Amino acid sequence: MNNFVYYNPTRIVFGKGTIAELGKLVPTNARVLMTYGGGSIKRNGVYEQVKVALAGRTLVEFGGIQPNPLYETLMEAVAVAKQERIDFLLPVGGGSVLDGTKFIAAAARFQGGDPWQILTGASVTVALPIGAVLTLPATGSESNGFAVISRKSTQEKLAFGSEATYPQFAVLDPQTTFSLPAKQVRNGIVDAFAHVMEQYATYPANAALQDRQAEAILLTLIEEGPRTLASMNDYDARANFMWAATQALNGLIGMGVPQDWSTHMIGHEVTAFYGLDHAETLAIVMPQVLRHQRERKAAKLRQFAQRVWNIGGGDLVEAGVSRMEQFFHSIGMPTRLSDYGISAADAAKKISERFAARNVRHGEHGDLDAQAVKEILLKC
Amino acid sequence: MNNFVYYNPTRIVFGKGTIAELGKLVPTNARVLMTYGGGSIKRNGVYEQVKVALAGRTLVEFGGIQPNPLYETLMEAVAVAKQERIDFLLPVGGGSVLDGTKFIAAAARFQGGDPWQILTGASVTVALPIGAVLTLPATGSESNGFAVISRKSTQEKLAFGSEATYPQFAVLDPQTTFSLPAKQVRNGIVDAFAHVMEQYATYPANAALQDRQAEAILLTLIEEGPRTLASMNDYDARANFMWAATQALNGLIGMGVPQDWSTHMIGHEVTAFYGLDHAETLAIVMPQVLRHQRERKAAKLRQFAQRVWNIGGGDLVEAGVSRMEQFFHSIGMPTRLSDYGISAADAAKKISERFAARNVRHGEHGDLDAQAVKEILLKC
Repeated sequence: MNNFVYYNPTRIVFGKGTIAELGKLVPTNARVLMTYGGGSIKRNGVYEQVKVALAGRTLVEFGGIQPNPLYETLMEAVAVAKQERIDFLLPVGGGSVLDGTKFIAAAARFQGGDPWQILTGASVTVALPIGAVLTLPATGSESNGFAVISRKSTQEKLAFGSEATYPQFAVLDPQTTFSLPAKQVRNGIVDAFAHVMEQYATYPANAALQDRQAEAILLTLIEEGPRTLASMNDYDARANFMWAATQALNGLIGMGVPQDWSTHMIGHEVTAFYGLDHAETLAIVMPQVLRHQRERKAAKLRQFAQRVWNIGGGDLVEAGVSRMEQFFHSIGMPTRLSDYGISAADAAKKISERFAARNVRHGEHGDLDAQAVKEILLKC
Repeated sequence: MNNFVYYNPTRIVFGKGTIAELGKLVPTNARVLMTYGGGSIKRNGVYEQVKVALAGRTLVEFGGIQPNPLYETLMEAVAVAKQERIDFLLPVGGGSVLDGTKFIAAAARFQGGDPWQILTGASVTVALPIGAVLTLPATGSESNGFAVISRKSTQEKLAFGSEATYPQFAVLDPQTTFSLPAKQVRNGIVDAFAHVMEQYATYPANAALQDRQAEAILLTLIEEGPRTLASMNDYDARANFMWAATQALNGLIGMGVPQDWSTHMIGHEVTAFYGLDHAETLAIVMPQVLRHQRERKAAKLRQFAQRVWNIGGGDLVEAGVSRMEQFFHSIGMPTRLSDYGISAADAAKKISERFAARNVRHGEHGDLDAQAVKEILLKC
C-alpha cells in the first residue's frame, strides 16, 4: 500500500426532508449566493424548499449554470458575488452547478490575476465557503474539492482541486431525484461506475480494503442502478444510488493505490469537441482504455471479473469488460462513437493532436501518450 | 435507509515514516501534552521519533495511562494540563491512550462541575484540540469522537462522544505495530470485527452500500488478520489491518442503519468485574448475543453467512456464527468465560443485576433487558 493522506471534512446531511436543515447549516448572518442550473429546481419544488428554509436571510440568486459549466458564465457570477459582498455560496443542483460554484468560490478570492490560471495550475488556498444541496447523484462533487470547468472560447475542459473548495456541508435528499429524466439517472450511474474503475482498474497495490470498498460500490451500482431506473419513486433505490455516487469520488477508495484517470482525460476532449454528455464519453472510452491496457491491468481486471461479475473462467479480462459494456447497454447507455454519428477516425485525429500538443501523459504508469490515445479512440 | 448525518473531519496521515510529519501537523506555537501508556513507545522507537519530529516545541509528558483508562489517572493529567497551560494534546499509543486523552481534552475545558458528568450525560461542546499517533490498530478511536473511561472506585466503565473530541489528525504508520505482542494484534482484529458486526448484524434497512462496505471490512479482517499474525514485519498485512480497524469505527458503515451495541455494553461489565481485555469480552459475548437474538437478526445473519463466509446452505444463521467463533479460535482468541476460570452463573447474576439497577435497555430494538442479559451470559 502506498502512503496517503485522507481528509474529507464535508458534513453529509442525508435523507428525507433534509433541505429543511439549511436554516441550521447556513451561518445566520451570511450573505448567500444561491447558484443553480437550468431551472429544474423550480419545477420540482426544491427551489421553494430552499427559500422556505432560508427565509429571512440575505439570498441572492444566480441561475443558468450549464452542464459542463462555462468559465464565461461563471465569471459573471464572480462579478455578482463581489458586487453583492457574498460570503457564502449555496449551489443547488448536480455536479455541474457544484463544480461551477467551486470555481466561483476560488475565483472570487483569487489574488493572482486572471482566474483562468486556477485551471492551469495556480494554487488555490482560499475560497468562499460553500454548502451544497445535491439533486443529481453522479459526480461526487458534493464531497470533494474538485471541479471541472469548460471554456467556450478555446474549447477547453480543465480541472482543479483544493482543500479550500470542499463543501462545508452537503444536503442529500433522495426525494429530490424523483423528477430526474431517466437519461440523467443513467448518466449518473455510469459516471459513478467510471469513477470507481479509475481508482480500481490499475495494478495490484496490496490495498485489500480499498479493493473491497471499490467492489462494494460497483456491486451496489449494478444492483441498485436498474432498480433506480425501474421506478422513479423507489426511495431506497434512489438513496442507495445517491450514496454510492458520493462514495465513488469522496477520496476513500483511491487512498494508497495507483489511479488511472485517462478515460476522464480522453472523455473530456470528446465532450469539448463533440458536445456529448460527460458520462456518455466515459461509457465509450473506458472499455477501450481497459482493452488497450489489458496486459498491464490484467490482475485487477481478472479480480473485477471474478468478484464483481462472478465470472468463473475463460478470458476473464475480456469477459469482465464485456459484462461492463452489457451493463451500460442494459441501462440504455451506448458505448460507441458511431452511436452518435461521430467518426472514430476524426476523433482519434483531433484528440490525439491535442494530447500531442500538450505533451502530457496519463494513466497509472504516466506513459499513455498521444499515440496510445489515437489507438484507443480508433477502437471507440 | 434511515436519515443520517456523516461528519468526520480527522485528517489521516497514513504510511511509512509519517511520524516525521508531526512537525507540520502540530501548530508551531502549541504547548503540547504528549500522553502515552506503559512505555512500550520508548522500547519500539516511537517515542524518539515523536521527540525528533517536535524538537524545539514545548512538550510536556504524561505517561502511565492504563488499558481501560482510569478516571482517577486521567484527572491527574487534567491537573497537569491546567498547570502547564497546555493547548494541544498528543496521545501516542492505542485506543486506551486515545480514549483517555479525549477525556482529558473535554475535562480540561469542562465548566459544569465534576468532570465525571461527562460520562453520565453532560454535553461536551468544547475540548482541547487533539492530534493522535496510533500504534495499536483496534478501536477506531483515532478517527471518531468517542471514548470509554473506567472508574476504579465504583467499578464502572462508561462512554461519551462529541464532535469536539475528534482528533484533528491521526498519524498511522503500520511499522509502529511491528513490535506489538501477538495478543494485542489478536485483540485488535476481534475488536474491529465486533465493531463492524454491531453496525451490521441487526435487521435489513435497505442500505445496500453500507452492508457491502461492512462486508468489505469483515472480509479484509478475515484475510489479512491471519497474515498479520503470521509475520510481524509484513508491512502490507499490517497496513491493511490498521486501515480496516480505522474504517470499522469511523462512522461510515453505521450511517442510515440500525445498530446494536449490546455486546459492547455487556462486555464492558465483564471487564469491569473480572478485568478481561476488552476484545476478550467481545469474543465471548457476541456469539451468544447473536444466537439469543437469532430470530430477529436472521435476515442479516443469513447474509453474513453467505457473503462473508460463502456458506451455501443449511442453518445459515448458526453456520455463520459458528464460523465467526472458529475464526476467533484460529487467531488464538477464546470464546468462553470458563476459558478464564470465570463462572457464567456468577457473571450472569452480577451483570444482570447491574443492568436491572440501571434500568436501561439495549439492542437495535431498545428492548434487551436485564433478563435477556442474564440469559445471554449463562450461555457464555
